[in-house]
Amino acid sequence: MTNQDRLWSRLLELGQIGVQPTGGITRLSFSKEERQAKDLVASYMQEAGMVVHEDAVGNLIGRKEGKDPSAPIVLTGSHVDSVYSGGNFDGPLGVLSAVEAVQTMTESGTVTQRPIEVVAFTDEEGARFRFGMIGSRGIAGTLTVSELDAKDAEGVTIAEAMHRVGLDPTKISEAARPTGSVHAYIEVHIEQGKILESADLSVGVVSGIAGPLWLKFTVSGQAGHAGTSPMNMRRDALAGAVAIMQVIEEETKRRTHTVGTVGQLTVQPGGVNIIPGVVEFTLDLRDVDLDTRNEVESIIRRRATEICSERSLGLVVEELQNIPPVVCSAAIHQATFEACEEAGFKTMELVSGAGHDGMQLQALCPVGMIFVRSQDGISHHPDEWSSPEDCAAGAEVLYHTLLKLASE
Amino acid sequence: MTNQDRLWSRLLELGQIGVQPTGGITRLSFSKEERQAKDLVASYMQEAGMVVHEDAVGNLIGRKEGKDPSAPIVLTGSHVDSVYSGGNFDGPLGVLSAVEAVQTMTESGTVTQRPIEVVAFTDEEGARFRFGMIGSRGIAGTLTVSELDAKDAEGVTIAEAMHRVGLDPTKISEAARPTGSVHAYIEVHIEQGKILESADLSVGVVSGIAGPLWLKFTVSGQAGHAGTSPMNMRRDALAGAVAIMQVIEEETKRRTHTVGTVGQLTVQPGGVNIIPGVVEFTLDLRDVDLDTRNEVESIIRRRATEICSERSLGLVVEELQNIPPVVCSAAIHQATFEACEEAGFKTMELVSGAGHDGMQLQALCPVGMIFVRSQDGISHHPDEWSSPEDCAAGAEVLYHTLLKLASE
Ligand SMILES: NC(=O)NCCC(=O)O
Ligand SMILES: NC(=O)NCCC(=O)O
Repeated sequence: MTNQDRLWSRLLELGQIGVQPTGGITRLSFSKEERQAKDLVASYMQEAGMVVHEDAVGNLIGRKEGKDPSAPIVLTGSHVDSVYSGGNFDGPLGVLSAVEAVQTMTESGTVTQRPIEVVAFTDEEGARFRFGMIGSRGIAGTLTVSELDAKDAEGVTIAEAMHRVGLDPTKISEAARPTGSVHAYIEVHIEQGKILESADLSVGVVSGIAGPLWLKFTVSGQAGHAGTSPMNMRRDALAGAVAIMQVIEEETKRRTHTVGTVGQLTVQPGGVNIIPGVVEFTLDLRDVDLDTRNEVESIIRRRATEICSERSLGLVVEELQNIPPVVCSAAIHQATFEACEEAGFKTMELVSGAGHDGMQLQALCPVGMIFVRSQDGISHHPDEWSSPEDCAAGAEVLYHTLLKLASE
Repeated sequence: MTNQDRLWSRLLELGQIGVQPTGGITRLSFSKEERQAKDLVASYMQEAGMVVHEDAVGNLIGRKEGKDPSAPIVLTGSHVDSVYSGGNFDGPLGVLSAVEAVQTMTESGTVTQRPIEVVAFTDEEGARFRFGMIGSRGIAGTLTVSELDAKDAEGVTIAEAMHRVGLDPTKISEAARPTGSVHAYIEVHIEQGKILESADLSVGVVSGIAGPLWLKFTVSGQAGHAGTSPMNMRRDALAGAVAIMQVIEEETKRRTHTVGTVGQLTVQPGGVNIIPGVVEFTLDLRDVDLDTRNEVESIIRRRATEICSERSLGLVVEELQNIPPVVCSAAIHQATFEACEEAGFKTMELVSGAGHDGMQLQALCPVGMIFVRSQDGISHHPDEWSSPEDCAAGAEVLYHTLLKLASE
């Protein structure tokens, strides 16, 4: 059985790295805080009996050998980077649960058929470069050298940041795992929502991950004098954007699982008495069902075009990212449900609205996730919280799931 | 008769000061460009036979003595400051038309009963400190010392800026004119709209100036994860702001003269995948009829409150400025109509949607304005344009109007 106290004390110890004076944790990728965090996790991995290395994109990997060292591995873990002023559980819980599960096996002398690798992925959050899941993209072999041109707020590119920590950005393809080399990927993560809390359950089994589509809308009209332009003679870019945003809310609200968020919006020229000439805004649109998401996307695009044409406005829609939803593997799903039963936890099936590294791995291997209850659904915030008992439940279920997946 | 060529060549000469490499003119208040502009205009005033001085808030004033030096004066003019990258006509046309009208009187040996004063007001636009009409507020006696704390982009206050050009900010009250000392204020200005252009007229007589009400709305909800918060569990500040902005457009469009503009809007925290927690936006609401404007304001406030309460959002509405509309003086109006006839220009009555220094003077004296046709209604832009003939028409009508007002 996994050790709740050890898991919790490691969570607290890791949670000291990157603590902000104003609250919360900031551990950006390739920063000294991230380095410290990886070093600490590497020491835990060694205590757990793993052989540790870092790959060509900086993923920290601990390997517990299996009876058949050449068998496709079971991969588990999460990330240790954070958003700005983030919480202590988003990422670390998955890494430390995986270490805990492996350490429990090591202590009981259990050797599984397949090797198990525990990973702390490089930059899941994308907080530094607005481009995340770098480590899992690297392992999936989908990270491209041109993507490393993305810059942080200081103008440092991913490639430069890699250089500074001793990684060679021209060699990222060495991190890619060959097809067939990974038998399964299973991750413990906090839910970041309120579904388990309202169902009064410690753990849930994830059936799918909603795929995020990120669009950027640029609406252009004509800037003008707020006093001298009658309402019917205006080409107000913001008024057009408002009409589009109304459609976004209406169309997503009409559906059960679709969510649509306009999180960024800028107005040019931006004077109190100047009619907006250009408005840019983003849309983050998600659904676990790709057909539904595509349908909502096309309605929004069509209505946006109509609105802008009625209002004599220009419209450009750019795609910033488009990740298809993940349907979690039925086999992993099944193994996780059985693991919950063995470990004595009631559970339920739920979908993940948040993106996870597993999304990047879906072409490489079957993917599954275990969710742990989040207090008040709060995440990406200093108040992020899951109880010691719930965290331990996640680790225990992972332990049983790994035993199954690694013996197949 | 006024001299079109002289007026035009002075417009071009003054238009060299503050020309930007990227186009347009930038002449901020208390800057060296504004100083240069005032010096040039002072030299024109002297050529026109006026005695020149600057008052306690930096207004440049040229006086042509009347037969009765103690009679309440006729005041005319405009401003020479500009917005960032503004045009060549907004302000200068009114100042130079006034100089031209007086010079024409001087050249023909005409001495009016009342003294005439030509003014180039300090900072009409408010571009530097986001607080304008400083000179006309000074003359009206409504400028307060605490208002001089407003800061420019470099953190320099109006008071400091005044100090640097040798003005004593504690003495602003010396600029105030006593009640009864100003018989009339009449200003030539470009229309900054398209009404004269569509009526194919060079000049128009202004019946009123729409009063701007500036409000700042702060809508606060709860920031959250764009993936894990179902639509019906959100308190999205931007979605609430969108609903309010729709009401603003609807209610202003339903009325003939009301205009409402949301020109600034910011979203916090401002991440693509973060539900907006706080949205701030401004409203510039105008009408020549105060009752109508008040009615629209109260509908918008009421609906905003309802919308925010339905959506469990917080709402704070602050008043940034509230200037009542001006009803132009019937007597000046009449004099200007007669002047148009004498000068041989067909004309029409129209209202000003843009704010002008006359708004500040309404408690001090009767106010009137003459509008000159703007090409395409463009203003506050390098493309701002009025033809030499139309500018001359404005000056000629002003000349005839001044003769009437100053002989009464
Ligand atoms: N799990 C998580 O917070 N992922 C990144 C944020 C997103 O889903 O957009
Ligand atoms: N005439 C003019 O442009 N006034 C200042 C701008 C405003 O009316 O808000």
